[in-house]
Amino acid sequence: MRIGIDLGGTSVAVGLVDDEYNVLYRTSAKTAGCKTDSELFEIINKCVYELFEISDISNDKIDSIGIGCPGSTDLERGLVVRSGNLPLSNSPVVSILTEEFKKKVYLDNDANCAAWGEFNSGIAKSVHNMIMITLGTGIGGGILINDKIIHGLENHAGEIGHIVVDINGKRCACGRIGCWETVASTRALIERVRSEVKQVPYSIIGKVVAENNGYVDGRTLFTALKRGCKVARDIFEDYLEMLSVGVLNIIDIFRPDMIVIGGGISKEGDTLLLPLREAVGECSTRIEISSLNDNAGIIGAALLYKK
Amino acid sequence: MRIGIDLGGTSVAVGLVDDEYNVLYRTSAKTAGCKTDSELFEIINKCVYELFEISDISNDKIDSIGIGCPGSTDLERGLVVRSGNLPLSNSPVVSILTEEFKKKVYLDNDANCAAWGEFNSGIAKSVHNMIMITLGTGIGGGILINDKIIHGLENHAGEIGHIVVDINGKRCACGRIGCWETVASTRALIERVRSEVKQVPYSIIGKVVAENNGYVDGRTLFTALKRGCKVARDIFEDYLEMLSVGVLNIIDIFRPDMIVIGGGISKEGDTLLLPLREAVGECSTRIEISSLNDNAGIIGAALLYKK
Repeated sequence: MRIGIDLGGTSVAVGLVDDEYNVLYRTSAKTAGCKTDSELFEIINKCVYELFEISDISNDKIDSIGIGCPGSTDLERGLVVRSGNLPLSNSPVVSILTEEFKKKVYLDNDANCAAWGEFNSGIAKSVHNMIMITLGTGIGGGILINDKIIHGLENHAGEIGHIVVDINGKRCACGRIGCWETVASTRALIERVRSEVKQVPYSIIGKVVAENNGYVDGRTLFTALKRGCKVARDIFEDYLEMLSVGVLNIIDIFRPDMIVIGGGISKEGDTLLLPLREAVGECSTRIEISSLNDNAGIIGAALLYKK
Repeated sequence: MRIGIDLGGTSVAVGLVDDEYNVLYRTSAKTAGCKTDSELFEIINKCVYELFEISDISNDKIDSIGIGCPGSTDLERGLVVRSGNLPLSNSPVVSILTEEFKKKVYLDNDANCAAWGEFNSGIAKSVHNMIMITLGTGIGGGILINDKIIHGLENHAGEIGHIVVDINGKRCACGRIGCWETVASTRALIERVRSEVKQVPYSIIGKVVAENNGYVDGRTLFTALKRGCKVARDIFEDYLEMLSVGVLNIIDIFRPDMIVIGGGISKEGDTLLLPLREAVGECSTRIEISSLNDNAGIIGAALLYKK
C-alpha cells in the first residue's frame, strides 16, 4: 500500500494506492493562499492523516510515499526549486515528508507523474514510447522513451508548453515569444472566450457566461458548443488548430507510439479527442485521452518507487 | 575494419573505418542525376571498390558495411522508402549491398548516423543525451537518449526541421506552415542572401556574389561577414535569431547534455557557434559544433553494428 500526492497550483489530492495500482481512497484540499512551506505541508499532512482515518489503514501499512509537484524540481536533493503558483522555493519536500511519516519518499514533477501513472496503469500500459500532454493553465509534458521517463538536466525536460510556435506572437510568462501554451493552454482558450463574449454578449456562449455570473472556465466553451453555439464552434475550431500544431510538432520530434492528452479539459472526452485526431490527420501515433483522469498524478506519484 | 557509406542528396562519401573509429581512407562521387537504384548503386559500389584499391585492403578484411540515407527508411525491411532528392523508392538498399559484398549491412538515416558518429567518437563521446542538428537544404535531427538513438514509429523520429515555429509563415515542402527549416536551414539563409543582394547589389555581399558569377551558397554570407559587410551582419543576426528559436525549443523539450551542430555551415566553427551560444543565453545544455565534420556520417554508418 502506498500514498500518492498530486500537488497542483491551487489544490492537492492525496490517494491510497494498492498493489494493483487502484486508488482505494482519496482526499483533497485547497492550497491556494498558502504562504510558507509549513502552511502548505500542514494541509498536505492533514490530507494524509485523513486518508488513514477514512481507510482505517495505519501508517505502518504504507510502503512508500510519492509526491508530484508543479514547477522545477531537484530530484537528487529532493527539493522543489521553485513553483509558479505555490510558495515553494528550494523546499526540501522529500525530507519534510520523510520526517513526518518515516517512510521512503519519492519526488518528481506533476506531468512526469501523470505520464508514469498512465504508463503503469492507464491508457498507455502497452506502449514503450509515449508523450503525456497536460492541458491546464500552462501546457505540461511527460516524456517516456523506452519505458523510462526522460528527465533531462536539472529535471528540465518536457517543457513542451514552451515550444515556440509563433515567432511573432504574444510574450509568454517564461520570457519567450509565442510559446505553444500562449495559444493552446486552457488559459489561452478562456481568454479567447472572454474576449469573444465581450464582442457578442447576446450569443449562446454569452448567455452561458451570464448564467455563471460572468465566470469563464474550461467548461464554458463546451457547454455552449453542446447548445449549438456558432461562436463557440468558431472558437473551438481555432483552438483545435493551435492544439494540433503542437501535437504535430511532438509527432515530428518523437513519432511516439502514443500521445496522451490530460488536464482539466481532457474530461470532455470524444468532444475534444475526435476533432483533434481529425485536425492532426492520418498518423501512426495513437492519440488518446488520459484514462486515469484526476487519478493519473496520484497513481504516478505512488508508483515513483518503480522508476 | 568496416565500411561507412554516407549518402546525400547530391553526392555519396564512402570511408574505410578502423577499430579505433578512424577514417583511414575515403572517397566520394556525385550522385545527382541518377534515375534508378541500379544507376545509384553502380556509383556507390564503384566508390567501395576504389577504396579497396587505394587502401590495399580487400573485401575479406571487412567486418560489416553501414549506410546512412536521407529520407524515410524502413529499418526492419532494410529499405529506403522514399528520399527527396534521390531516385530511391522502396529501394532494398540492404539487400543490394549484401548481394554485392556478401557482408552484414546496416542501415539508418543520415542524421541518425551523424549523431551516432559524434556519440561514439566525436564531440559527444562523454554524454548520454544529445541532439544532433544538421543544417543543410533542410534541418535534420538525430536524437540520442540514454545512449540510444531514438527511432520512433517507422523510423520517423527526429524530424526537428519540421517543428512549426511560425504559424503564420511560409509553406514548407512537407505541407505544414512555418517549419523551422523554412527560416533556419542553409537554404533559407541562401534565399535571404539572394533577395538582399537584389536590393543592395553594391554592398560588400553583393560584390562577393558578383565575384562568384551570381552564385550563392552557404559560404557567401560568411565571406562577406569577414570583409566587414553591414548587410551581411544584419542577415546573420536575423538568421541567428531563427536558429536560436529552434535550438531553444530543443532545449525546452529535452534539456539534453549536449546539442551538436553539423552540416555544411557548421564548418564556420566559432563564427557560427559563439554568437549562437550568446543568442541562446545561459543554459546547462552545452552547444557544440560537430568535431567529425564530413566524417560524422561515415563513422556513424560504419558503427551502426554497435547500436
